[in-house]
Amino acid sequence: MSIQFEIESQSGSARTGRLITPHSEVETPVFMPVGTLASVKGVSQDILEELGVQILLGNTYHLYLRPGVEQIRRLGGLHRFMAWPRAILTDSGGFQVFSLTDLRKVTEEGVTFRSHLDGSSHFFSPEGAMDAQIGLGADIIMAFDECTEYPADRDRMRASMELTLRWAERSKKHFEEHKDEVPWFNHVGTAAQALFGIVQGGMDHQLRRESAERTIAIGFPGYAIGGLSVGEPRALTREVVESTLEHLPTDRPRYLMGVGTPEEIVEYANLGIDMMDCVLPTRAARHGLLFTSEGKITIKQARYAGDEAPLDPNCGCRVCRRYSRAYLRHLYASNEVLAQVLNTVHNLSFYLDTMRAVRHSILLGKETGSSCVWSRPKP
Amino acid sequence: MSIQFEIESQSGSARTGRLITPHSEVETPVFMPVGTLASVKGVSQDILEELGVQILLGNTYHLYLRPGVEQIRRLGGLHRFMAWPRAILTDSGGFQVFSLTDLRKVTEEGVTFRSHLDGSSHFFSPEGAMDAQIGLGADIIMAFDECTEYPADRDRMRASMELTLRWAERSKKHFEEHKDEVPWFNHVGTAAQALFGIVQGGMDHQLRRESAERTIAIGFPGYAIGGLSVGEPRALTREVVESTLEHLPTDRPRYLMGVGTPEEIVEYANLGIDMMDCVLPTRAARHGLLFTSEGKITIKQARYAGDEAPLDPNCGCRVCRRYSRAYLRHLYASNEVLAQVLNTVHNLSFYLDTMRAVRHSILLGKETGSSCVWSRPKP
Repeated sequence: MSIQFEIESQSGSARTGRLITPHSEVETPVFMPVGTLASVKGVSQDILEELGVQILLGNTYHLYLRPGVEQIRRLGGLHRFMAWPRAILTDSGGFQVFSLTDLRKVTEEGVTFRSHLDGSSHFFSPEGAMDAQIGLGADIIMAFDECTEYPADRDRMRASMELTLRWAERSKKHFEEHKDEVPWFNHVGTAAQALFGIVQGGMDHQLRRESAERTIAIGFPGYAIGGLSVGEPRALTREVVESTLEHLPTDRPRYLMGVGTPEEIVEYANLGIDMMDCVLPTRAARHGLLFTSEGKITIKQARYAGDEAPLDPNCGCRVCRRYSRAYLRHLYASNEVLAQVLNTVHNLSFYLDTMRAVRHSILLGKETGSSCVWSRPKP
Repeated sequence: MSIQFEIESQSGSARTGRLITPHSEVETPVFMPVGTLASVKGVSQDILEELGVQILLGNTYHLYLRPGVEQIRRLGGLHRFMAWPRAILTDSGGFQVFSLTDLRKVTEEGVTFRSHLDGSSHFFSPEGAMDAQIGLGADIIMAFDECTEYPADRDRMRASMELTLRWAERSKKHFEEHKDEVPWFNHVGTAAQALFGIVQGGMDHQLRRESAERTIAIGFPGYAIGGLSVGEPRALTREVVESTLEHLPTDRPRYLMGVGTPEEIVEYANLGIDMMDCVLPTRAARHGLLFTSEGKITIKQARYAGDEAPLDPNCGCRVCRRYSRAYLRHLYASNEVLAQVLNTVHNLSFYLDTMRAVRHSILLGKETGSSCVWSRPKP
């Protein structure tokens, strides 16, 4: 047994559910904070638990380079290594390698790439990506795909989609043969990881449909929509998400990779997406861009230097309960490490609160507009 | 009323006591973590409270430059600005300015110096340092002194000591005239700050005695020993501390500025020092140097890459309870911000535990050797 997915309520296309993974239950729709190198930058795991994070994302490419898959495997897998008892999802490394535009070469067999750290040469194949993700031991792992660049012509989109489909078959075959090698296989009641397939097809609705149908034919316990948020206009992203969702089974979790803003995660949850991840809340926090119920705040601005109000008067997070905008502005302007820590805690809190509000609205059968994000009641 | 100091127990030269400040009670001997820019780098105030920090040190020079004294005064003082309800001590800026060797010029009137940030020119006098520290509003503030360089000949040591004595008189006079301008004067039952005098005199026992006697004649509610840890051998530091302590009143808190290692803080507490501060635990943490009951650990070493043990098996801090050396080594080697956060929490915990053990031993009437630091029982 790998995962179970139970839908609890539906409202239009949106639904709430429970994703039961070997390590914990996850309420959906869910936003997954990104913990690239086995750490959500600056935030201790205690605080992530307090924030209500139920599932974290780790990046296979980064962990493969540091500290190395074998090291993590020997230490019992990613959960034990980073002392995180709840669910984890790892990406396949495909998107990260895709981002190394000048450092990679794609062939039928896989991708040769150079490390962004030291220029050393490495090779990822569907089989290698499965071995890496089995060694890391996340609850949910992803098929090795090619993320089609944007813009791309139809021939290129088709060729890329076909490659991803062949790689999906190879990913599944290798995973099925090796899934009992996950470090915790016999510790968590012989539970196994769940391998999700990824739908590609560029911005072409017809290709997306074909990719969805053929990926479903291979058969996975969950499906992701990949290849979006790669530079295309937001309206196009939404169109592709909507048209792809029509072709995905309703009884399996649907994961939209790499989105988005607070408004977007509400919008996609309302379209029926169950899982999302994005570096935005954490990366923006490090640059002093903070999400609040009253809109975005660029904390370095001089206007906040004397502002005694909490960052977000409608937020109950440990940052908003204790500190003023003036203090947060001072920390940021003075390049204090605590700025990054507190800003990240708040932004994650805002994203998680947003998803809680969305789940609540779906449960009540209400369409959740972005208004729920920007005007939540005081806690 | 500013502070009260009550001695609770004595054992040889050592004593335990309670320092009652306008904002909180402090158990002595106490180690004060350094929060230079209104933040102990990387650690949220909640965590400092949890660690049992009862008094923090802020640096007037740094806060004067960023965010500026006037800004903090308008926001109600340092306690309110940084959301820290417990006691705070600020240094006078004298030592910081002393460190700007090539950027300062000392005259009878005060010190002209250039900012390390932008090279802008500033002037600190005893009166200016008092105004700054009154504006910041720490519970305990320090007279403006000249920290004598090491080595220095006897004429230079005497001249510097005499200057510090004249500045001590001016500091006290200005403070007495303006102490009701502290931002919280009428909020905390018209309590006032306490101004401590600083004994200088270089490494000369005779001058130290004279400095102590003449500083006491001016009259302060507490006395600091300054001008040590400026490059002299450790044995000499200890000698000067011991000989200076003989001339300080036993009924006032005695503060040794800028020390030390875990062994040293134990040693000085046993000599009868009541208060100490040092950047060592926090700065060392940022460089991956960790203090444990089994000795020092340089966490970047490859030997820890596969080490599943906690950093310190005898430590009950939130870092040692949760994370392995392997994980901490990975965070440090990968330059993750969480490395700095967790390392700092542990080192502070170790220092505070050490002082708790010292207080306990003094209460029991036992001499506390460094053995109490290195072999504490499991919590």
